[in-house]
Amino acid sequence: MDNRTGLPIVGMVGGGQLARMTHQAAIALGQSLRVLAVSPDDGAALVAADVQIGSHTDLEALRRFAKGCEVVTFDHEHVPNAHIRALEADGVNIAPGSAALQFAQDKGAMRERLAALGAPIPRWARVRTLDDIPAFAASLDPQASGGVWPIVLKATTGGYDGKGVWMVSSPEQAAAVVDSGIELIAEERVPLRRELAAVVARSPFGQVAAFPVVETVQENGICVEVIAPAPNLKTDRALEAQELAIRIATELGVVGILAVELFETDTGLVVNELAMRPHNSGHWTIEGARTSQFEQHLRAVLDYPLGDTGLTAPWVVMANVLGGADDGMAIDERVHHLMAAEPGVKIHLYGKQVRPGRKIGHVTALGSDLDDTRRRARHAAAWLVTGTDIEGGPQ
Amino acid sequence: MDNRTGLPIVGMVGGGQLARMTHQAAIALGQSLRVLAVSPDDGAALVAADVQIGSHTDLEALRRFAKGCEVVTFDHEHVPNAHIRALEADGVNIAPGSAALQFAQDKGAMRERLAALGAPIPRWARVRTLDDIPAFAASLDPQASGGVWPIVLKATTGGYDGKGVWMVSSPEQAAAVVDSGIELIAEERVPLRRELAAVVARSPFGQVAAFPVVETVQENGICVEVIAPAPNLKTDRALEAQELAIRIATELGVVGILAVELFETDTGLVVNELAMRPHNSGHWTIEGARTSQFEQHLRAVLDYPLGDTGLTAPWVVMANVLGGADDGMAIDERVHHLMAAEPGVKIHLYGKQVRPGRKIGHVTALGSDLDDTRRRARHAAAWLVTGTDIEGGPQ
Repeated sequence: MDNRTGLPIVGMVGGGQLARMTHQAAIALGQSLRVLAVSPDDGAALVAADVQIGSHTDLEALRRFAKGCEVVTFDHEHVPNAHIRALEADGVNIAPGSAALQFAQDKGAMRERLAALGAPIPRWARVRTLDDIPAFAASLDPQASGGVWPIVLKATTGGYDGKGVWMVSSPEQAAAVVDSGIELIAEERVPLRRELAAVVARSPFGQVAAFPVVETVQENGICVEVIAPAPNLKTDRALEAQELAIRIATELGVVGILAVELFETDTGLVVNELAMRPHNSGHWTIEGARTSQFEQHLRAVLDYPLGDTGLTAPWVVMANVLGGADDGMAIDERVHHLMAAEPGVKIHLYGKQVRPGRKIGHVTALGSDLDDTRRRARHAAAWLVTGTDIEGGPQ
Repeated sequence: MDNRTGLPIVGMVGGGQLARMTHQAAIALGQSLRVLAVSPDDGAALVAADVQIGSHTDLEALRRFAKGCEVVTFDHEHVPNAHIRALEADGVNIAPGSAALQFAQDKGAMRERLAALGAPIPRWARVRTLDDIPAFAASLDPQASGGVWPIVLKATTGGYDGKGVWMVSSPEQAAAVVDSGIELIAEERVPLRRELAAVVARSPFGQVAAFPVVETVQENGICVEVIAPAPNLKTDRALEAQELAIRIATELGVVGILAVELFETDTGLVVNELAMRPHNSGHWTIEGARTSQFEQHLRAVLDYPLGDTGLTAPWVVMANVLGGADDGMAIDERVHHLMAAEPGVKIHLYGKQVRPGRKIGHVTALGSDLDDTRRRARHAAAWLVTGTDIEGGPQ
């Protein structure tokens, strides 16, 4: 509790853009997010008043950070689960807790737990030795469209934005990854039509709330665009995705936001990944839903009643802004041009130095015509990353 | 320019709720508002990373504060105009500048300037001696409905929220105010139907953008409710209000937000007050307009192109949350109940200690039915201030 305001202090471990945007939401609720950042130049550390500098792998730094917090939550999954358990043993209120978070930290544990729940998942196997790869390949249906290969190898921990994922087309290619010594799981390549995401929130009280299901568009393993609601998604399929996410949140005891990344195939839904924090597939909610995922995460971890998840426009499109090659035009000039070209598109910049391929921000367009809304979002994102292709719309 | 982000630093003098909400808007634009606060407990100082503690009447503090800012702007009107001129002489970029701001700082200067522009204003006179009051009263039309008295006396500087305004019903009552030595103007009491506000923005380039005209509902001289758009306002009257505000902004050389408080009478519009900063009558724009007045103010003072001012819902109602008597229920508990009762209403708390009558926050409801939207906003505001009257709707 903050004695100056009578309102709770939420601590977020990690100082990236998720903490930055959560701080914005905290301000409206009369709070000021406490941030544990690695560097004073982290996106959230640049804008928050209550910042501690320290490593999320340093248990003593975490203990100091947690003091006085009503609840501690996370901007990422990289806090060692053993540290979280140690904090819980100290009596710190952590959301999501270690028992839930392990399933967002370890893909092997996640797959086992989802299998036990009967949730739809790809065929998969743990990879302990080189021999496990051909054994897994042999277990797959050679009659599947596209055949058995390529197979997907995933690092069980630490992957994001396409990192820690390898598509291998032969046992030899697989061997190169296995030889690196990274702990892996193997998965069949799912014959997907497209990717969806179901973002829900759950409070300790057990209240759940689901945002509309979205389509996520990936390029090179990185999400570039999110469309809300997912176009041409049948109502029963959307409900199925929301119910699946709610069931996972409830069964795993998640507190806060749970994002369930899904593949849509010809026959149904398959769970790809879980994240237990505000997620890129929910950034559109800042303007596009009555309650943003960041406010919803705060409400959930504080055991406040959850907010209205309804859309604020028929279509909402978020496009990520990925850093491009330096072409001599400063970011401030780009912002200027974008504002002139698209006065209704909302800009979110994360305070990051531009590096090629790095997510430095996102833009959100709202509208009543899907094609026009996508065009404006893509156009705006293109303005921020490169002087070229500014007339480019979605493919 | 912030070397870490390549984006400009805007400095705001004053650490109240306007700076607090401007900081939220700055975060999205990749910036971090620099705040000059009187106390580390000021609402904006509690949430911003880049805070200097100092007085807005201390020229040296202002000079230190301005260093490195692309532009310096204001959370209130209380910086002495001579200090602003001194900063301008130093080469500091100030928005709005001293030449414009004097008309928001001195009601006598404002009335003279508006009269010269031919803008509709109440009959008024400067009050230098006690004799000026009966002379002014004699100049008014004794046949006016309601007669000459009461007359309105206003302190030329420093008033807000009903402070610095006296309704006097006789020369004797007037004498008591005049004897206090405060510099005053006298105004006729305008036979108003209701109050409106026209909020516009203007950039140094000269671009202007007008938000929809709103109705402001006052109780005891304090704004308690803002309805956007103003109900039953004829299109030509709304346009007239916007054009008047744009003309004032342009003629006075305002940079940033200009809020024009208006009386609507049986015969037309009358200008009540001017504010050259984000204004209580524009708080609804955070969720209710595509661009909030806080983002718009930043865009304007930075000479960025202005944003879309369109409504995001048919009706938007903001209700101020005024501190009530302490009845033993903590603010955090009130927030909890409010969220349960009104999951779609947006909460904005300013980080202030509760004191009776003090604005500690506001709430915003959006909807397609005016009565229901007003009811939800009033209901939500009532939840935050007192345990009683929680079922109360608008009169």
